[in-house]
Amino acid sequence: MQHFFDPHSIVVIGVSERPDNLARNIIINLRNFGYRGQLYAVGRQTGSVLDVPIVTSVEEIPQGIDLAVILTPAAAVPDLVDACGRTGIRSIVIESGGFSEYSEAGRVLEERLKQVVGKWGIRFVGPNCISVVNLQKDVCLPFASISPIGTRLGPASVIAQSGGVSITYLDQLSSSGVGANKVISIGNKADFNETDYLTFLLDDPTTQMIVLYLESFGDGRRLMELARSSPKPIIVHKSNRSQASQAIALSHTAALAADDRIVSAALRQAGILRTESFEDTVSVARGLALPPVRGNDLVIISRSGGHAVIAADVAERYGFRLAPLSDEFERVVRTFNRADVIALTNPVDLGTIFDFGLYAQIVQACLQTLAPDAILLINTYSITETDGAHRLAQRVEQIVRESGRPVALCVYTQGDDRQVLQEQVGLPLFGEIEHAVRGLAASRDRYRWQMRHHGEVVQVADAPPDVKRWLSATGVVTTDAALQVCQAYDIPVAAWETASNPDQAARAADRLGYSVALKVLDANVTHKSDAGGVVLGLANADQVRREAAVMLRGAPCIRLMVQRMAGEGVEVILGGKRDHTFGPVVMFGLGGIHVEVLEDVTFRVAPLSRADAEEMIEEVRGRRLLDGVRGKLPVDRKALIEALLSLSRLLVEYPCITEVDINPLIVLHRGCIAVDARIVTG
Amino acid sequence: MQHFFDPHSIVVIGVSERPDNLARNIIINLRNFGYRGQLYAVGRQTGSVLDVPIVTSVEEIPQGIDLAVILTPAAAVPDLVDACGRTGIRSIVIESGGFSEYSEAGRVLEERLKQVVGKWGIRFVGPNCISVVNLQKDVCLPFASISPIGTRLGPASVIAQSGGVSITYLDQLSSSGVGANKVISIGNKADFNETDYLTFLLDDPTTQMIVLYLESFGDGRRLMELARSSPKPIIVHKSNRSQASQAIALSHTAALAADDRIVSAALRQAGILRTESFEDTVSVARGLALPPVRGNDLVIISRSGGHAVIAADVAERYGFRLAPLSDEFERVVRTFNRADVIALTNPVDLGTIFDFGLYAQIVQACLQTLAPDAILLINTYSITETDGAHRLAQRVEQIVRESGRPVALCVYTQGDDRQVLQEQVGLPLFGEIEHAVRGLAASRDRYRWQMRHHGEVVQVADAPPDVKRWLSATGVVTTDAALQVCQAYDIPVAAWETASNPDQAARAADRLGYSVALKVLDANVTHKSDAGGVVLGLANADQVRREAAVMLRGAPCIRLMVQRMAGEGVEVILGGKRDHTFGPVVMFGLGGIHVEVLEDVTFRVAPLSRADAEEMIEEVRGRRLLDGVRGKLPVDRKALIEALLSLSRLLVEYPCITEVDINPLIVLHRGCIAVDARIVTG
Repeated sequence: MQHFFDPHSIVVIGVSERPDNLARNIIINLRNFGYRGQLYAVGRQTGSVLDVPIVTSVEEIPQGIDLAVILTPAAAVPDLVDACGRTGIRSIVIESGGFSEYSEAGRVLEERLKQVVGKWGIRFVGPNCISVVNLQKDVCLPFASISPIGTRLGPASVIAQSGGVSITYLDQLSSSGVGANKVISIGNKADFNETDYLTFLLDDPTTQMIVLYLESFGDGRRLMELARSSPKPIIVHKSNRSQASQAIALSHTAALAADDRIVSAALRQAGILRTESFEDTVSVARGLALPPVRGNDLVIISRSGGHAVIAADVAERYGFRLAPLSDEFERVVRTFNRADVIALTNPVDLGTIFDFGLYAQIVQACLQTLAPDAILLINTYSITETDGAHRLAQRVEQIVRESGRPVALCVYTQGDDRQVLQEQVGLPLFGEIEHAVRGLAASRDRYRWQMRHHGEVVQVADAPPDVKRWLSATGVVTTDAALQVCQAYDIPVAAWETASNPDQAARAADRLGYSVALKVLDANVTHKSDAGGVVLGLANADQVRREAAVMLRGAPCIRLMVQRMAGEGVEVILGGKRDHTFGPVVMFGLGGIHVEVLEDVTFRVAPLSRADAEEMIEEVRGRRLLDGVRGKLPVDRKALIEALLSLSRLLVEYPCITEVDINPLIVLHRGCIAVDARIVTG
Repeated sequence: MQHFFDPHSIVVIGVSERPDNLARNIIINLRNFGYRGQLYAVGRQTGSVLDVPIVTSVEEIPQGIDLAVILTPAAAVPDLVDACGRTGIRSIVIESGGFSEYSEAGRVLEERLKQVVGKWGIRFVGPNCISVVNLQKDVCLPFASISPIGTRLGPASVIAQSGGVSITYLDQLSSSGVGANKVISIGNKADFNETDYLTFLLDDPTTQMIVLYLESFGDGRRLMELARSSPKPIIVHKSNRSQASQAIALSHTAALAADDRIVSAALRQAGILRTESFEDTVSVARGLALPPVRGNDLVIISRSGGHAVIAADVAERYGFRLAPLSDEFERVVRTFNRADVIALTNPVDLGTIFDFGLYAQIVQACLQTLAPDAILLINTYSITETDGAHRLAQRVEQIVRESGRPVALCVYTQGDDRQVLQEQVGLPLFGEIEHAVRGLAASRDRYRWQMRHHGEVVQVADAPPDVKRWLSATGVVTTDAALQVCQAYDIPVAAWETASNPDQAARAADRLGYSVALKVLDANVTHKSDAGGVVLGLANADQVRREAAVMLRGAPCIRLMVQRMAGEGVEVILGGKRDHTFGPVVMFGLGGIHVEVLEDVTFRVAPLSRADAEEMIEEVRGRRLLDGVRGKLPVDRKALIEALLSLSRLLVEYPCITEVDINPLIVLHRGCIAVDARIVTG
């Protein structure tokens, strides 16, 4: 993939002298950026763009050029690619649109294109993309004009499933103080997809963080795997989550939307930071460009009391703790000239101190004596104070570099002075308190994820239990078979027997002990209790016999299940399904109305780690019910975690299972017990 | 209050020639802004600032100056105010800090200050404020340097309970394209509070919208009243909602934080738009600066497909509908030159059209043929396209003005061209899709509120029911008395009788009909069922007699309540309390775990309108339970609304009631019925 990012020679195909020719912009961009390799242009008519002559066929350029960039009508592309192949070109960026994203004819054309590249062993980016930028090597291939003045080299690389979005990220990461490294617009992913580019960037020594803009996932599980093993933070801005967006995304470059709750869960599980907008991405990138935030202790230092109050609210919302300041800090600060009027609370309100040098001293004293996990410094300054404010920013940059501690500097001033200052310093400057705290929180979450999931093992047994005989049928498995499967996977189930007539049922109940439940065993009855197929709390053999007779009256050949009633506990639902992007997924929610009415559920991609299972339980809003409310005893979370892990194993080890529900699983003060289960195979 | 905003003469007190003198900045600001009135300076030493001579006593300046601005150490302020009084000054801005916000001694000083102003009939802003700006009259009184170049006159006025925040809003509203009008930093509110300033601004002809930044409320109910009667939109940025912020807000200028959920509910109820950050406020102000958004139909037009996908997601999240485009629109667009390649879906992806003139034509065709409630136009442009992009913005501004329809223009480009363009056009430009949609949604919400609540009446009866005899005691009222009160207010209650012994209880049960509940009547037992003081579902006289005997065994002199069991329905909780800021507040939530575990509750300030009561029910997450789930019948919302309105009246008409709970109220398929109630008086 090196040829795409660091080509020693480039030919641009589709160039003309006309001012509205787009391929011409590629030549101009390369020259403006100072690209130092060989540069050639091919077009339908001879001429020149800047100092680059236009020749009329690929055959006229030297053999073995590193990279071709094609921007012509789609119909011409396969033949041009073939011509490139003949001249020894093996890497091509195809920017032309009009392929599978556009029409059926375009799809056919894209197939032809794939055949041609296959013949020559060519690899390509696109088609239908705005292409590749590598600021490190002065490579700038988009057909939109880009000014090198507005770009800034830095550690963040971008992979975007939209050309327009890739350029916005190039602009915004450049002006944010973070800086951009490599930017790829991936178009129709006809050859490489996002995980191929990601693999390359994870190995790229100058890329330190990666931003992905995606409208669909090529291979969600592979993305998770790469992210899990990556020491570089990955930010995913995933759109196309609504019905409205799908209408256009389909005609654009993307595929069907996944269940967005599963997307969020899968990304979080793999330590990927999901963002919601351009601005949010930039805030997170700024936070990650600072040294890592290792915990929740934050000190806020502000010139304006009002901004300090706002910041304290935001900090609390993001889970930061404003620890009290120490006597030692106070002792050090009091030695500074004129620092006697500061009220030393956290937030530190600098009040009427007008000495920018003193602010830096206070920041440093704070780091030295309190060692908080992060500092948020808010500088509101007027237009006559720019010199001092700029010196302060430079000083903070130095302090951050020397101490290896994160200080988020958030500035509010008139006009465009923040942008002016940003061009002068390497420290990313935040323009809004919310953004600064979001950036610090993202860094903390990433760090916490690394600590929590570092070296974790997912529980997949060497020899999976043999449950094939219970799964033989395709479609819905009967309750008793589903419960057998649960039992084989060490999920405790309420003892049961089957019966075909009232007397058998009564005898079974006697053996099981009272009270018992009686259920119709029919794979086609999904909501048994709605259909009158369940009777609970039968206290003696007579009751069992009577109810069994009622159930069998309408359908004498059905089987019945007699089941011992479980003790009192909290009803939960464990579920599993196969997502077309992420594969086996485990669901958890509290029983009753929590899942169906309140949609209070959480997901993880299987296999789960123990930490994943713990996090799932923490994520549901009704989790307090597990702690025991109104005098009830807390229930056995450990048993619930084991059940989640077992279900995860089942889904991984038996890919024939497309859906599972254990509903309810009753979690008791000690242990848990599955009462009903449903498995669908396919 | 006119003297504060449009003084014909000003004296600044506390001025010296020293460069670090802050009062000096006030003189410089006034001169920089071109203030045309008389200007005087008083300080401890003679000298001059610019062309303004400094005299050493207030007596040396002419009699009857319109406005004095004082910025000296706090201790000197009362005598200086007295001197001002002697020279006929009746309006003073006191910027000095060191009063009640600082220390006990400061509080005493503030009291003395109030005595002095009382003697002369002086009105004042502050103390402890950064003061007043009126861009319309070139008045700029803050002690921080402000550049007139960075300010822009417009329709938005600001009232801020923080000097620093007031300046940030002046800057941000100026650079947002909205423009600022009057900005007031209210300091300690020792004389005027926020509602006084609000009253003035509501009458101010050049103020068209008002931004309030508040850390506490002076008089929440008065604020609501003013907002309800105001045709001008009011935005409230309320901070100080966390424990962390209160630590500093107390030492700053603010008071105890109110329950933030009540704050949100009260503001929404009064049609006030609550914002969460500077950026959010500016987005809302931009949205309100456009013509009103009258509904949910939005058309998105974008040059970049990726941005269109992102925008569609955001639009759906904010409740907008992307209606399909009409044949008529398509017919008109197809007549435009080169418009044949646009895929006419909503969002409209302009794709490979590079003609900015055409974009404006499409916007206009959209308004004319589709008449959507709003258009979001996203322009991603490169640095070589600035001319066309600027012309487009000007053209859109003209279209908005001529059509009276809202078009939110959101631009993404390199460097600072958005700011450059913003200085050239009156149309507010959004820099992020999320902000644009938020702005449009705020405008829509405001419009919807006005339509819904216009001319509504709140139900307060002419003659309140006489329930005094049931409320005679101070403290907790017994259940039977509380139910009597409910009944008097037309809230149906489950029939009951009281009894003192088992036989009385059994006879009462016979009269009421079975099944019945038996409850201990003791005002001190709050959670009766936890304390074993409730037995439900007793089916005959024997059971009643037996259970009554058990209850009376431990405490023979208590009374019992025998109550007819209510039918099956949905349990809800109605509550009421007195908030120290907003007065009587009504609470609503679903029963059981919904309130206590899930905190799924909603509030409104009493008296409620019918629309308020309807909205409360719509706001709880579990509302679907009222529609009937799993085959149950929907319950009687109308009866529930009546019960909420009755409770609201009770709270308004009996201020002696500090707390009420009707828990549960059972809402049936027809009607509703209160089963238990609790009233606290005080």
